[in-house]
Amino acid sequence: MRGRGDRLEKLLGERELDRMLVTDLVNVRYLTGFTGTNGACVCAPGLRLFFTDFRYTERAASEVEGWEPITVEGDWLASIAERLEGKVGFEDDHMSVRSLEKLKEKLGEGVEAVAAGGTVERLRRVKDDEELAAIEAASKLADAVWEWSVERGFAGRTERDVARAAEARIRELGGDPSFPAIVAAGPNGALPHAEPGEREIGRGELIVFDMGAMLDGYCSDGTRTYASGDPGEEGREVYGVVLEAQLAALEAVKAGAKGEDVDAVARKVIDAAGYGKRFGHGLGHGVGLEVHEAPRLSPRADDVLEPGEVVTVEPGIYLPGRLGVRIEDFVVVTEDGYRNLSALPKDLQIVE
Amino acid sequence: MRGRGDRLEKLLGERELDRMLVTDLVNVRYLTGFTGTNGACVCAPGLRLFFTDFRYTERAASEVEGWEPITVEGDWLASIAERLEGKVGFEDDHMSVRSLEKLKEKLGEGVEAVAAGGTVERLRRVKDDEELAAIEAASKLADAVWEWSVERGFAGRTERDVARAAEARIRELGGDPSFPAIVAAGPNGALPHAEPGEREIGRGELIVFDMGAMLDGYCSDGTRTYASGDPGEEGREVYGVVLEAQLAALEAVKAGAKGEDVDAVARKVIDAAGYGKRFGHGLGHGVGLEVHEAPRLSPRADDVLEPGEVVTVEPGIYLPGRLGVRIEDFVVVTEDGYRNLSALPKDLQIVE
Repeated sequence: MRGRGDRLEKLLGERELDRMLVTDLVNVRYLTGFTGTNGACVCAPGLRLFFTDFRYTERAASEVEGWEPITVEGDWLASIAERLEGKVGFEDDHMSVRSLEKLKEKLGEGVEAVAAGGTVERLRRVKDDEELAAIEAASKLADAVWEWSVERGFAGRTERDVARAAEARIRELGGDPSFPAIVAAGPNGALPHAEPGEREIGRGELIVFDMGAMLDGYCSDGTRTYASGDPGEEGREVYGVVLEAQLAALEAVKAGAKGEDVDAVARKVIDAAGYGKRFGHGLGHGVGLEVHEAPRLSPRADDVLEPGEVVTVEPGIYLPGRLGVRIEDFVVVTEDGYRNLSALPKDLQIVE
Repeated sequence: MRGRGDRLEKLLGERELDRMLVTDLVNVRYLTGFTGTNGACVCAPGLRLFFTDFRYTERAASEVEGWEPITVEGDWLASIAERLEGKVGFEDDHMSVRSLEKLKEKLGEGVEAVAAGGTVERLRRVKDDEELAAIEAASKLADAVWEWSVERGFAGRTERDVARAAEARIRELGGDPSFPAIVAAGPNGALPHAEPGEREIGRGELIVFDMGAMLDGYCSDGTRTYASGDPGEEGREVYGVVLEAQLAALEAVKAGAKGEDVDAVARKVIDAAGYGKRFGHGLGHGVGLEVHEAPRLSPRADDVLEPGEVVTVEPGIYLPGRLGVRIEDFVVVTEDGYRNLSALPKDLQIVE
């Protein structure tokens, strides 16, 4: 974890900042390892400060290495402000207007707060080996839960029952859901963000099952669409188009590829089949400490993929009132392609 | 729920605001009933606007009543800015520095953004009957889980096992944990925010068990300290002091009482017993859609209690390296006292 502060220090130089104040807890965790609910850190050349309060002094001692620990006893922002000098980057995309006001009141003379949101998020895009191991473990856990869910069958159960049981199984296996599982069958499959409901899953329906596990703070994210019996001609056709789009897009993933270009590969397949207007979201996104993070694969995304980034590839087609299909893997970007972290089959599985 | 917008409208008049922009999702839920992950609302005399995106159009139609629904298709902040006029209150304690910058760029001529954070939180302090019913149901669910946990016993199990099992039981009963359950035994009890660990609970230890359930969005929060066999003279004494402090503080709860004065009642009992330095947190806090909200019962809290507020009363004594005791009820403030929502016994329960 020590190398992460060094990488941030290097970015500060490039951005002509003297110090960086990091207040977003996910970014603080990334840099320092701290998992409590109140912490901040300050990075500068040769300086690594970690702030928390008395509740977390012991936890910080066991989790945080390479950052000087400071337990704040009085005013939180005043204690931090004392250690700020020169041009100080702050996370304008996370810090509230009120916190910045209060911070500015306490800054010493000549100290300037400069908007620098996204700096740590930029570092977080490329995962190191420790992070990849955590993400892979989360993915394996989730795959096991899909297999377990398939064994229990879908027809005759409610969406909510399937989703709740899967979440409970994730916890039994030692993880947490990285987001509330989506189980959307039949016409509900056409709502990309449906809440699993009391509707009983019938036979011959397509079931969009989107789920992720979190383990040691790192997330997985994947989707399979199952059929509870033959889904009919339209269902089979739509499934085939989404699968073709997904496989084509995966082939376009590699270091140097642009987010919008990978997205366009999938979109072209779906357009050609006449479903262009029914793919209403981006192709994918980064996954790590958060289930949605940089980079993005979507129209107008100019992010250029780098080795070690972890991204989802998840095209979908949604026919309102009828059905939906989404197939989502998540993969590690490599120099010449990708390594797929999802091990489940992708041909249409009939699960009654 | 309609009355909540009317109460906000009245506050706007008092604060000389023409419109109020609400962006914090908990506040949006409070006012409109919307439970999705992207929404905002604008309130002004005779005007109730609710904004979301295409993913939540259907959910908004079923959840939101009395607010005109608007599905934003282009730029989120620009669409909202179009409907703002005059002096516009915004939630400076929630809105990020970057969002405010972007919003200001899009405001029409003569439109002014004014910091007005805490306005909806002020309304949320006093609960209506519907809210009290939800909170009471959450409390009953949590009480059932404590009773269930006690039946399974503590000695020989790990803290983590007890906590995880209780959380799973909350979910089985249809709720969610309102925060990760704390189970801290023996010396771990002295860490008020301990993570339940792999330490096996021995016999004759005090076990701080802090837990809450969430049901229909509303939280409960309570703590009991159990003993896995006779906790010894010091344990019994400390338990007695905390219980005396808790009972005395409860008697001080009523409409018109000041937060700092109720806190002082408990603190005085603990001071008199010689443990004054070992009660390192405030006496209590409001509970509702969030597990920590206004008002506060703590030193220097000038909040004056009103009928219908729901607050915790939770003194504790923590002896580093040895033990901890905390006893927490949560209660509805009434004109002349309180109604206790926690139904569990408070004399020391020996549970092996």
